[in-house]
Amino acid sequence: MTAYNKLSVEELRALREELLKGFEEVKGKGLNLNMARGKPSPAQLDLTLDMLNVVNPETVMKGEDGMDFRNYGIMDGIKEARELVAEMMGVSYENVIVFGNASLPVMYDTISRSMTHGVCGSTPWCKLDKVKWLCPAPGYDRHFAITEHFGIEMITIPMKADGPDMDLVEELVSKDASIKGIWCVPKYSNPLGTSYSDEVVKRMANLKPAAEDFRIFWDNAYAVHHLYDDDRDELLEILSECEKAGNPDMVYEFCSTSKISFAGAGIAAMISSKKNLDFARKSITIQTIGYDKLNQLRHVLYFKNAAGIEAHMKKHAASLRPKFEAVLESFDKELEGLEIGTWTKPKGGYFISFNTLEGCAKAVVEKCKEAGMVLTGAGATFPYHKDPQDSNIRIAPSFPSPEEMKTATEVFILCVKLVSVEKLLENK
Amino acid sequence: MTAYNKLSVEELRALREELLKGFEEVKGKGLNLNMARGKPSPAQLDLTLDMLNVVNPETVMKGEDGMDFRNYGIMDGIKEARELVAEMMGVSYENVIVFGNASLPVMYDTISRSMTHGVCGSTPWCKLDKVKWLCPAPGYDRHFAITEHFGIEMITIPMKADGPDMDLVEELVSKDASIKGIWCVPKYSNPLGTSYSDEVVKRMANLKPAAEDFRIFWDNAYAVHHLYDDDRDELLEILSECEKAGNPDMVYEFCSTSKISFAGAGIAAMISSKKNLDFARKSITIQTIGYDKLNQLRHVLYFKNAAGIEAHMKKHAASLRPKFEAVLESFDKELEGLEIGTWTKPKGGYFISFNTLEGCAKAVVEKCKEAGMVLTGAGATFPYHKDPQDSNIRIAPSFPSPEEMKTATEVFILCVKLVSVEKLLENK
Repeated sequence: MTAYNKLSVEELRALREELLKGFEEVKGKGLNLNMARGKPSPAQLDLTLDMLNVVNPETVMKGEDGMDFRNYGIMDGIKEARELVAEMMGVSYENVIVFGNASLPVMYDTISRSMTHGVCGSTPWCKLDKVKWLCPAPGYDRHFAITEHFGIEMITIPMKADGPDMDLVEELVSKDASIKGIWCVPKYSNPLGTSYSDEVVKRMANLKPAAEDFRIFWDNAYAVHHLYDDDRDELLEILSECEKAGNPDMVYEFCSTSKISFAGAGIAAMISSKKNLDFARKSITIQTIGYDKLNQLRHVLYFKNAAGIEAHMKKHAASLRPKFEAVLESFDKELEGLEIGTWTKPKGGYFISFNTLEGCAKAVVEKCKEAGMVLTGAGATFPYHKDPQDSNIRIAPSFPSPEEMKTATEVFILCVKLVSVEKLLENK
Repeated sequence: MTAYNKLSVEELRALREELLKGFEEVKGKGLNLNMARGKPSPAQLDLTLDMLNVVNPETVMKGEDGMDFRNYGIMDGIKEARELVAEMMGVSYENVIVFGNASLPVMYDTISRSMTHGVCGSTPWCKLDKVKWLCPAPGYDRHFAITEHFGIEMITIPMKADGPDMDLVEELVSKDASIKGIWCVPKYSNPLGTSYSDEVVKRMANLKPAAEDFRIFWDNAYAVHHLYDDDRDELLEILSECEKAGNPDMVYEFCSTSKISFAGAGIAAMISSKKNLDFARKSITIQTIGYDKLNQLRHVLYFKNAAGIEAHMKKHAASLRPKFEAVLESFDKELEGLEIGTWTKPKGGYFISFNTLEGCAKAVVEKCKEAGMVLTGAGATFPYHKDPQDSNIRIAPSFPSPEEMKTATEVFILCVKLVSVEKLLENK
């Protein structure tokens, strides 16, 4: 196919007419599509339905020590759930605290606690003139929303093919003591779908931050969320890398079963050094008399161990894979060679990331909306919703049905073409 | 019976010998008792076992609007759960947000949010030189632990028979703008078991605080926790009283099903004005993508409505009542007229409050421990664990079995007598 930028003005005009005709047709259909939501489909949620049966009136709801899971107590989560998470994440259960139904509140609380109580003895961040944060982008909008909510100044770090730009991260972190953290989605990242290389993980673990209370927020949300059995990204285990590097307390890792069991009724965990967890416990024992241990038990009895989770994740993959592949095949077929966009081809996670020509993302999202399709807002994947290139769009294939996904991809491609042609004509 | 203070030194010495003999006998038994834990007994938790069956793979897990309760979303909690709580608490569901498994984190988060973000536009409390709090005492130790954790200066307010000393509350609140809140357990209060009179509730609602961001933290933890069908305390509904008084935004009410369903796996709620809830939502939508809606649904399907909760609470009462009565009957029989202690006779809630002679509470707790029985630490019911009279002891009859409760009460009475005699001899 000929690249659009090689077309003459006349050719572009003719193409625009044709595309506009197609666009008006699509508009006439009154579609109601959504590729914005990074959440599991009803079919995926059906996969875990039997979990609802495993804790019933006949179930033994006691720990080895006789503690009643129905009652108050067991602040760290039940040992069986800590062991399940530990095996899944390749760490020791002593480094795990299991919380409530999602990891986002755990991350929020960790930052909130640092604001009011500091980090392991440091000055509470709310008492400092300035707190800054590194935000590899495109990244997860809800991460950026947390740091923004607390008035933390966010610094955008470009993402490369194998993770954040570590030259920049190392330089900034080592010279500026007001930088207190960095958001990372190290595996099948949101929205790029790429994973950090061994080198990036090692460089991350070996950071020499100017701030003693600098922490890596390692949101390993898609740790076991592979699309393929035989072609997977492998991620170095960060806790042990930090230990080896002499930085045992530099990382908080977060994970959950939100996209393993139920998005609204999973279990979440924080994984960190004893020192960090002990400091967190000082607040947690004031904040709660224990999280929901019956739901923790549900997960333990249903999945049993990491192998059980692994087997379960293959069912999710079977549901997600065709949708990812349908999008990517259409992109290949319809957009390859046109030089009006690039996209990622993830082996796991929940997103495909699409980059339009510079200055086109907002217009594409707007056009799609006109055609009856909601996309994640352009810019959402950057701090303060500001994409400097106005080019990144996050595509979430998980929620729609395969049929909806097919139509949605067609609409998306049409809008990308139309907006690109208009942009090129503008610049001629 | 003769009051101990009327006995001669010789009589007291003889009595001490006799009590010491009894005490040594008890010690020899190697008891392992606990009257410290304000948590439901296993028999009470058994009452709700069938709730574990009501959400199963066949259950419709969707709202009227088609939202899937298994997935992300519905930040306010499912409407059905908000309605259940609203009916139970006598408010409108629009004033209710349903959260996760317990109300303590909701209270903690509300104070934490005020520290970092202020209250409806006020200066964040962490930016103020001084934040103070009114603490009616004896009160709930975990309340005081939260305010202490955030470095808030606690001022003890004496409790009267019908609630806090309102003369003092009114005076302090109206003249000191650094006073930002007050802890209240208005019904069957922890640990007194008494309820606020209509006059106290009205005076509370009519406060004229110097601080615009002053809030009443109304922890209505025992709202439906009656011991008797025909002899109950009634509490005025605070939200509408505040509205009537022209203070619609002055109160946050909290409640949960921790002592209705499962202590570790209930649902919790905050009840407040639209303005307060909207301000809270600004943080909550950053903090979470929704609480566990399947557990909310469990509660809705199991209890159905306020009448369902009412019927269920009668089963709890049947389990708790004999234990409360056994303690109180023993006190009446063994201690009446001795003038070495006073105690409350609650019609609901989880606690009996005992006041020893001045300066004896710590010694009684210590003696009980020596005899193999754990009591709530003396002073725990006061800010900073400092009981100015050293006389208040919280007794929690709920957890032990009736047999254990009988033995525990005997041990307690013996220790009170022994410590009192020693105190009287000291003073002779």
